[in-house]
Amino acid sequence: MSVTFPQGFEAGGAHVGLRGKLHPDMAIVKNLGPEYGVAGVFTSNRVFAAPVGLDREVVARGKAAAVVVNSANANACTGQQGRKDAAAMATHLGETLGVPSEECLVCSTGIIGRALDMPKMLAGIEQVAAGLSEEGGDAAAEAILTTDTKPKTARAQSATGWKIGGMAKGAGMLAPALATMIVVLTTDASFEAASLQATLKEVVDETFNRLDSDGCMSTNDTVLLLANGASGVKADLDEFKTKLQEVCQNLALQLLGDAEGAHHDVEIRIKGAATVEGALFAARTIARSNLVKTAIYGNDPNWGRILSQLGTVPEDVLPFDPSEVDVSINGVTVCRAGGIGENPYLADLSPRECRILVELHAGEEEAFVWTSDLTHEYVHINGDYTT
Amino acid sequence: MSVTFPQGFEAGGAHVGLRGKLHPDMAIVKNLGPEYGVAGVFTSNRVFAAPVGLDREVVARGKAAAVVVNSANANACTGQQGRKDAAAMATHLGETLGVPSEECLVCSTGIIGRALDMPKMLAGIEQVAAGLSEEGGDAAAEAILTTDTKPKTARAQSATGWKIGGMAKGAGMLAPALATMIVVLTTDASFEAASLQATLKEVVDETFNRLDSDGCMSTNDTVLLLANGASGVKADLDEFKTKLQEVCQNLALQLLGDAEGAHHDVEIRIKGAATVEGALFAARTIARSNLVKTAIYGNDPNWGRILSQLGTVPEDVLPFDPSEVDVSINGVTVCRAGGIGENPYLADLSPRECRILVELHAGEEEAFVWTSDLTHEYVHINGDYTT
Repeated sequence: MSVTFPQGFEAGGAHVGLRGKLHPDMAIVKNLGPEYGVAGVFTSNRVFAAPVGLDREVVARGKAAAVVVNSANANACTGQQGRKDAAAMATHLGETLGVPSEECLVCSTGIIGRALDMPKMLAGIEQVAAGLSEEGGDAAAEAILTTDTKPKTARAQSATGWKIGGMAKGAGMLAPALATMIVVLTTDASFEAASLQATLKEVVDETFNRLDSDGCMSTNDTVLLLANGASGVKADLDEFKTKLQEVCQNLALQLLGDAEGAHHDVEIRIKGAATVEGALFAARTIARSNLVKTAIYGNDPNWGRILSQLGTVPEDVLPFDPSEVDVSINGVTVCRAGGIGENPYLADLSPRECRILVELHAGEEEAFVWTSDLTHEYVHINGDYTT
Repeated sequence: MSVTFPQGFEAGGAHVGLRGKLHPDMAIVKNLGPEYGVAGVFTSNRVFAAPVGLDREVVARGKAAAVVVNSANANACTGQQGRKDAAAMATHLGETLGVPSEECLVCSTGIIGRALDMPKMLAGIEQVAAGLSEEGGDAAAEAILTTDTKPKTARAQSATGWKIGGMAKGAGMLAPALATMIVVLTTDASFEAASLQATLKEVVDETFNRLDSDGCMSTNDTVLLLANGASGVKADLDEFKTKLQEVCQNLALQLLGDAEGAHHDVEIRIKGAATVEGALFAARTIARSNLVKTAIYGNDPNWGRILSQLGTVPEDVLPFDPSEVDVSINGVTVCRAGGIGENPYLADLSPRECRILVELHAGEEEAFVWTSDLTHEYVHINGDYTT
């Protein structure tokens, strides 16, 4: 059901000729109102795709009636022509659906640095728009995929009457040149626009932004939330945040689990830190170490690589005494007080889930990220195929 | 000849039982004087090995008479015992050679997180010390290797009569858990101690510190320079810096060329930057992208990955306008003004050497780093072998 789980949304997806083999490659989600609330969180990459620029403006205006998502081409690094093309897609979507074009969002995902095939795009919008329905959520979730092996959807509801639905694509951010994560969330709860954006930002920071598969930040990453108030129920903000977090965490773990080439889902958690920010910086630093990631792939509890990577975190970012640090891998304290701990080979790395815990003994704060291991398949997917 | 190319140095190397298969695994270099100048540049990792701490103190005191290097064990993450062991090695080296122990340097390279086998270490020092000679430079260069496939030596001399010699180990920093780069340089030029340290620091920054194979910083990286004044010639500082840079650049390229698993030596150069520091930051950021590194492995001129990675550099670090950026790969301008340039497949990536040039058009400064591609062999070496 994905984005059509809440009332008052139509969606659809179809093959419009952007990808081969009749794979569905374009989706549309339409908000039927009565409210047209929108929030968006976008890549912080300075090199951002044309549709990201367009969507930022729509979100800033605060109203959205529809979103079109195409796969196969990211419309990134395409210059002035790319911006014109994204605007033309929004205009055509508005005209086709009979809604204001300035309330139309565009998401593109696929290869970077190629011009869009605009005749196909515009005809595709008409084709998909013709098939929209309140049962179209799953078709839409299928049509936004690129290298993903399966669609990713989630939902939640409140006893007070409102619902949240969502769909996501992104092969665990392992192929961000295929420009990467697109998430569309819908709700029929009723909202103040300002609280919607703040809530989405907070939730994204604690869910999707904790995925750090290969440290590469896409040009196209986009999370959109559309709110139409169709349930007639004003959401309690705390409850809404909790449910939205549930949906986003669920989608984030689906993204991680579908990381092509990955053999392990790895949680890296830093405890005993002076600040959350410092702990998060350290977790990301460890998550980005190719030596740590290859060791996990090899089921090798090589904790020296973890400690060595931790040591590259600047002291002003995260104060700690290396001779106080404990490290555990899947529950085995392999490093104690910065030195040799229990026999590392007691740590069983055969399960897909791997938990690395670093205890700094330098404060009360903690943070975590999820990452994937670095495998032969990663190199194969990203190196052996020319694009 | 390596470290015994200049006058007044003895060296030797032997198998003392640390590594299997009779591979030589310990080296000693002895300075015969009359001067005992020393300079050292060490890893900036906060988690540094015990011998690094010891050597920093020796260098701070300003005099060094000898250095012992063992392979197979890095004496890193070994806590208080590790510090005691490093000190015991220095003491035993001094006693064995009849020089002050506080002028003895220790370098260890190999696996992290294991206690040294001290009886073997101490007996080994006696064994190697017994075989020192003024022809022992090559034997020493052989004995410091770990996963390297060949020894790395270089030399230079001045028409005024002094010489520089050097040896290095480190498999392109591709296996820094084997903790990693050790470089010992010798010269018979005569010096003021203060100028020695400043010169070494400058030269290392522009040579070894431009190697960024896999972005992982070792616990043991050490570059030592011993100066004995045996030529009787006071070096002209500018000439000495030029020659030292020659030797270090030569060794650095040998390290890069011996990067196990690497198929390409990649130069990433940022031009048109406001500052050298910003350009260097950007070059390192691109060098650390697994997507860029796998693309080069696949001979794929996938410039979108380069631009996307560049876009993650914060604006205060490096101001530039993404829509002004040109990127060329091996001479082909694949990206022009942030958009589509020449046909990327004109760029021939089949040679081992690959040159990526990013022109920001945002200033007059430039910087470069060298890196390696990310290959199946990298994953194999660092993942498939448990250590």
